[in-house]
Amino acid sequence: MSTIWTEQLSVGANHITGSALRDLLKVAEETDMISFAGGFPAPECFPTEELTAAAERVLVEHSAVALQYGPTEGYRPLRSFLTQRMASLGVPVPLEQIIVTSGSQQALDIIGKLFIDPGALVIVEEPTYLGALQAWQPYSPRYITLALDKDGLDVEALARLLESGERPRFLYLVSSFQNPTGITLSLERRHALIKLAAQYRLPIVEDDPYGDLYYSGGRLPLVAALDAELAGELRQVMYLGTFSKLLAPGLRVGWLVAPAEVVDKLVYAKQGLDLQCGSLAQAIAYETCRDGLLERHMPGIRSIYHERRDVMLAALEEYMGTDVTWTHPEGGMFIWLTLPPHVDTTALLRTARAHKVAFVPGSAFFPNGGGANTLRLNFSHASPARIVEGVMRLKHALDEQPH
Amino acid sequence: MSTIWTEQLSVGANHITGSALRDLLKVAEETDMISFAGGFPAPECFPTEELTAAAERVLVEHSAVALQYGPTEGYRPLRSFLTQRMASLGVPVPLEQIIVTSGSQQALDIIGKLFIDPGALVIVEEPTYLGALQAWQPYSPRYITLALDKDGLDVEALARLLESGERPRFLYLVSSFQNPTGITLSLERRHALIKLAAQYRLPIVEDDPYGDLYYSGGRLPLVAALDAELAGELRQVMYLGTFSKLLAPGLRVGWLVAPAEVVDKLVYAKQGLDLQCGSLAQAIAYETCRDGLLERHMPGIRSIYHERRDVMLAALEEYMGTDVTWTHPEGGMFIWLTLPPHVDTTALLRTARAHKVAFVPGSAFFPNGGGANTLRLNFSHASPARIVEGVMRLKHALDEQPH
Repeated sequence: MSTIWTEQLSVGANHITGSALRDLLKVAEETDMISFAGGFPAPECFPTEELTAAAERVLVEHSAVALQYGPTEGYRPLRSFLTQRMASLGVPVPLEQIIVTSGSQQALDIIGKLFIDPGALVIVEEPTYLGALQAWQPYSPRYITLALDKDGLDVEALARLLESGERPRFLYLVSSFQNPTGITLSLERRHALIKLAAQYRLPIVEDDPYGDLYYSGGRLPLVAALDAELAGELRQVMYLGTFSKLLAPGLRVGWLVAPAEVVDKLVYAKQGLDLQCGSLAQAIAYETCRDGLLERHMPGIRSIYHERRDVMLAALEEYMGTDVTWTHPEGGMFIWLTLPPHVDTTALLRTARAHKVAFVPGSAFFPNGGGANTLRLNFSHASPARIVEGVMRLKHALDEQPH
Repeated sequence: MSTIWTEQLSVGANHITGSALRDLLKVAEETDMISFAGGFPAPECFPTEELTAAAERVLVEHSAVALQYGPTEGYRPLRSFLTQRMASLGVPVPLEQIIVTSGSQQALDIIGKLFIDPGALVIVEEPTYLGALQAWQPYSPRYITLALDKDGLDVEALARLLESGERPRFLYLVSSFQNPTGITLSLERRHALIKLAAQYRLPIVEDDPYGDLYYSGGRLPLVAALDAELAGELRQVMYLGTFSKLLAPGLRVGWLVAPAEVVDKLVYAKQGLDLQCGSLAQAIAYETCRDGLLERHMPGIRSIYHERRDVMLAALEEYMGTDVTWTHPEGGMFIWLTLPPHVDTTALLRTARAHKVAFVPGSAFFPNGGGANTLRLNFSHASPARIVEGVMRLKHALDEQPH
């Protein structure tokens, strides 16, 4: 094979590698596989009829706008809708501070591009969202991780870190029903975190794809909302939202809510990336949601996922031994398993694949190594019967691991 | 205003600035403005009925796929369709070498990320496409430019450059009906270019958004096709295509055809950017095109733009003085004007705005400065009557410039 192009690769390119997730999603596509690997919504939760009707209205009534180039910041009616949504979540911002992105993933890339130099310090949870690590690979940050317990990240450890003089570019967290653990940052720690951030001028990136998927209790106040309350404006926190779990991932419509000081920079960066998100997808998202669809639609999704979570927790309880522990998330899409120290979940996956069940080995979520005996299970995509069957298969695979 | 975030900006971020284009597109939105600024297709050229029917088919028959996450590389039926399209353009590649991107703009960003280090040499035409310069701002290349004449870039100057020992990361060109000049690289120079590239192992990025918009003659062989012919496979050239001018820009669906050696790297990079392009938009693009729509649809577009080009050329002939010269493009969307040396087109735009006509000042297309007395006119978006009126307004604005 020629090396004309590979000889020209940039320093950043050499940090970009294939991800466990990508190869795993391929495993997940194999025939008869029960996949707990991807973070896929259940297709029966897509509001397909409403989206179809909205697509038709958009293409019949607004085609000249929906098919044309539009502003980099996003489709104005959608951004206006999102100001209302953000206000209802306690984050009152003007439309100018909302930028539509191609899912949250693009917001992560933009943030990496704008705020990470090689070797710069970024603080993340341990484990943290794999997609963030992938987005930031080319920018080569240095990571310090904060351990998670049942109440979320260790704010006291963060306080010690900041007190010791470390000055991170930002802290990244998934505040509710975290990916990969399902853990939610407690109210008390949210307050402690935002006070600490204000004290040390620490920027926070709050990723919130799952906040509306609550099955016990409701939504806690966003860290962004506590920031807005404390500072009188959004100051410390950049907030990432997405329609991927509210409507459908195939639209690729998310949004970024930014403190006023960096909005222009974010928009300029986004323009260089892809000029804008799809006008059609944005118009469809808006037309689908404008008359309150989310309020009518979300309870149904919550009910379906609630059952699946309970089914998976019960199956784990039934089939797993006492040497396996797992999280009990109050929402979201994921359960996090910790296996005995001698089990390597990357090896386990090979066995599991033969048993026709897939998951994501936990080590992929640890930027500084570790987690070899952990794994992530998704419970939103498979049916309850398949969840039970899949957990049984996982147990069989586990039984075959060397002791 | 707070500086919590701006204090954390990366080195690359400091190179990202607002573009003339962005601010100009805002001018173009003003009431009664005749805009020759954007590179917008005419909305009457969108195949709206076909897209509407395709959207309905997709959402009724394939919603579980079109609304779900999909592969980073793109929607497989669309990629399969694109292999046929590329083969018909003389570039026979397997499906694996085609990656769907969010318009060509995203391909430019990915290329910058993978192949540009700060200070690395990139060769571009002078003037060159503004969006490429924007995409590459954060990667801070050093540019060497090649002058354009009526047959395209100066291949002999390139030969001298390579002979002198310069080793650029790649050469970027818009081979047909270039943005911003409308100039097409002649067949003879295409052959000379690909031979030179093979001799010096020079990677070439061939951007081809306008190749199907020919009004005199037809399509010349792609540089990528000559490469495939010469090397027996795609080796020197990465090719960028887009549906923005074939169907509609609002879909944000383009594609990148890459030499085999860098496909994996490109896909990994794309995954970090946004996971994938919209499944729905890709499925709609495929459903719209699968039965030969492009062959039926493109002659109509060509006919409309052909007339507009002729009307603009005739209006320039009628209204502009002998001290103004312009290109006579055989296709595409743009005409390039060179005004007398004392005219500054950025100043002219302020006057033009008062006269309610907009364009893009040429200096924005010169990465190393220059071109202050040049400007780009788009002829695809405005109606023939508005084109004549707009050129008259431009003449009035020009008459008011200081001599």
